[in-house]
Amino acid sequence: MKIVAKFGGSSLANAKQFAKVKAIVEKSKPLIVVPSAPGKANKKDYKITDLLYMCHQLVDHGLHCDEVYQLVESRYRTIVADLALDFDVDGMLKETKQAIVDGASKAYCASRGEYMSGMILAKYLGYAFVDPKDIIRIADGQWNEAVTRRQVTEKLQGQMPCVVPGFYGGDAQGEVVTFSRGGSDITGSILAACIAADCYENWTDVSGLLAVDPNIIADAKPMPRVSYKELRELSYMGAMVLHEDAIFPVKEQKIPIHIKNTNCPAEAGTLIVADIEQSDGVVTGIAGRQDFMVFSVEKAFLHEETGFYRKLVSVFETNRITIAHMPSGIDSVSVIVAEKDARGKEEKIIKEIGIYCAPDAVDISYQLSLIAVVGQGMVSTKGVAARLFKSLAASAVNIRMINQGASELSIIIGVENRDFEQAIAAIYNEFH
Amino acid sequence: MKIVAKFGGSSLANAKQFAKVKAIVEKSKPLIVVPSAPGKANKKDYKITDLLYMCHQLVDHGLHCDEVYQLVESRYRTIVADLALDFDVDGMLKETKQAIVDGASKAYCASRGEYMSGMILAKYLGYAFVDPKDIIRIADGQWNEAVTRRQVTEKLQGQMPCVVPGFYGGDAQGEVVTFSRGGSDITGSILAACIAADCYENWTDVSGLLAVDPNIIADAKPMPRVSYKELRELSYMGAMVLHEDAIFPVKEQKIPIHIKNTNCPAEAGTLIVADIEQSDGVVTGIAGRQDFMVFSVEKAFLHEETGFYRKLVSVFETNRITIAHMPSGIDSVSVIVAEKDARGKEEKIIKEIGIYCAPDAVDISYQLSLIAVVGQGMVSTKGVAARLFKSLAASAVNIRMINQGASELSIIIGVENRDFEQAIAAIYNEFH
Repeated sequence: MKIVAKFGGSSLANAKQFAKVKAIVEKSKPLIVVPSAPGKANKKDYKITDLLYMCHQLVDHGLHCDEVYQLVESRYRTIVADLALDFDVDGMLKETKQAIVDGASKAYCASRGEYMSGMILAKYLGYAFVDPKDIIRIADGQWNEAVTRRQVTEKLQGQMPCVVPGFYGGDAQGEVVTFSRGGSDITGSILAACIAADCYENWTDVSGLLAVDPNIIADAKPMPRVSYKELRELSYMGAMVLHEDAIFPVKEQKIPIHIKNTNCPAEAGTLIVADIEQSDGVVTGIAGRQDFMVFSVEKAFLHEETGFYRKLVSVFETNRITIAHMPSGIDSVSVIVAEKDARGKEEKIIKEIGIYCAPDAVDISYQLSLIAVVGQGMVSTKGVAARLFKSLAASAVNIRMINQGASELSIIIGVENRDFEQAIAAIYNEFH
Repeated sequence: MKIVAKFGGSSLANAKQFAKVKAIVEKSKPLIVVPSAPGKANKKDYKITDLLYMCHQLVDHGLHCDEVYQLVESRYRTIVADLALDFDVDGMLKETKQAIVDGASKAYCASRGEYMSGMILAKYLGYAFVDPKDIIRIADGQWNEAVTRRQVTEKLQGQMPCVVPGFYGGDAQGEVVTFSRGGSDITGSILAACIAADCYENWTDVSGLLAVDPNIIADAKPMPRVSYKELRELSYMGAMVLHEDAIFPVKEQKIPIHIKNTNCPAEAGTLIVADIEQSDGVVTGIAGRQDFMVFSVEKAFLHEETGFYRKLVSVFETNRITIAHMPSGIDSVSVIVAEKDARGKEEKIIKEIGIYCAPDAVDISYQLSLIAVVGQGMVSTKGVAARLFKSLAASAVNIRMINQGASELSIIIGVENRDFEQAIAAIYNEFH
């Protein structure tokens, strides 16, 4: 098993967490370990990256950064001391401070959190240290795949097993550049793709991706398996998951991502896979978004009219409003859009629909929530729709819209905002 | 109660039927009675209108029409004789034949079926006879409302109660013109609208409009009440009902249409009304159409792309294909169209979607049936969707599409063609 293992900030917040990481690494033996900067070990902690940004700002304004940098020094010194590591932490901290004081770039300063984490972790694990500046090529916030792949082959392959700090790489001039979005997650994903890993382990402080918002279902369970596509649908609907940029490199090569909990490594976590051949459960996850509005357009014989749909969608396009869904009846079409996109433009839109589409009537309604019930095996499983709507009926939720048929993965249901949480809870309790 | 009563061909097929009509008229006292030409009293009968068209054709080819016209004569003579009516049927028949032989227009010839029915019925009922040629103005197959309303006021109001034959009117030159579609139904509807009737009774040989296709449910029951809008949805989906042109004049004025059975006048029939405030049943009717196909377009982030929908619908528009429905998921849209419209164009359409929309994938599937479950009170009634999908699950029907939300009136469900009848039966049995 070729494994790339990324550890988040909370997994490296202190020596105790470093020790957990070591235990995990000794067991699963990843070829590449990608560390974040130390995160908060407790609520009073500062994030190292925030402190380093502050140092850069102070220096940039001609001020001293000593006091702030002492907080950085103290964190790393404590970690090294607590690990009883034979490591020249003072030398590393002094060198870094000198660079900051000498006016290093903002990206360089920010990247030192991961860099110093990586230096310590490499020593602690007995892994080689490889600086991503020389491996991962970044241009305009995006990775350059061709150059990175060449550099991985030339400079990284011989060094494994190794530690490669997350969050940054180098530009064509060899300067440090950070990713604009996705952080260390994307570094791990890129390296997993470049060495064609069998699995990309993403170690966090949660036991996987939850099947539903824990603010609605307090004891929400993680999803054991979820496909990339299911994840996209859930994430579009607001479920908090990995950033799309962090999924893209491994998704291309169908490398699974394993979300695991550093604090409970025995727990199964969530495996994100390219395809689920046999579905574990009927419904993988549930997510939703509130505050949509509906333009209901009524016109007799609209389906016999050439260009009706084109004219209708053009009205929204020219008003720069994205159409979320467009369910249609016999003589009616509803255009569902986010309230924030269309608020204040209602009169203009109705007027334009009147001019271009000559409808019999146009109505507006607000406060619609959309709920995506996602599951690969769901649509082809008989009786799922029945269970779904029975559960909603039992909790007295009125269904304003149903949309199934485009995706093999999901049924999208529209309910009143006020029924939003109740509807999600009803569906979750039916299927979990 | 101002009533206009139209009687269909089977209601006037012979003297026995004329007697039933008289009993009905004596009870409900309509101000205007609109008769059709005598229809088939039994399977061996010819339709009078067909015979009259044949006469016209024969004369037009320089041939004798005597033998065919004898069939016409015999029908009317028998009716008058059986009714023991003091009416100069020979004079009427002779005059009509002379006009046909003298080369009267096709419309004139065809209209004589209703004309002669009306002459006999007026005598039989003791009603005045008014020729619609002088009342209903037709241009290009459509009625001219303004002229007709003026003529009704000038020439009809003083004559009521009266018989006005259906199916024809007059043009600006005073020539007889027939309606292109809708037949006598439209005459009744126009006159009901013009005199602002309280009810337009439409007497047929069925006990109302059935809630479902009797070929699927043998003992299908009629709908007691149905709104114009519900009827439109059912009729779009293939349910056999009145022609749209025949509904339009009364619909405008919210005059109810009462479909009644001449052979069982005590039965409630179906009342077609402008609005149903309190729904009688949850599901008013069920209708469906087979042989749709689906273009499933998959593209990540399509909802964030300006103009995606416009480009997609334009492909179908330029190929002159009407879009029936367009359900959408998160990263996918399905375009549902009639197979007959898109057959043979699949490759071209896929290619064009590829060029204009740059999708990740386009799939085609065939043999989809759409079923409209129609009922005014349905969407706002909690638990209806649950019962609907439970009934489908129980009969092992796999649901390929659900579309609810555009119309307050209906849920549209997509199933495989092979599940079509089973699905309709399951829904009907659940709700009736």
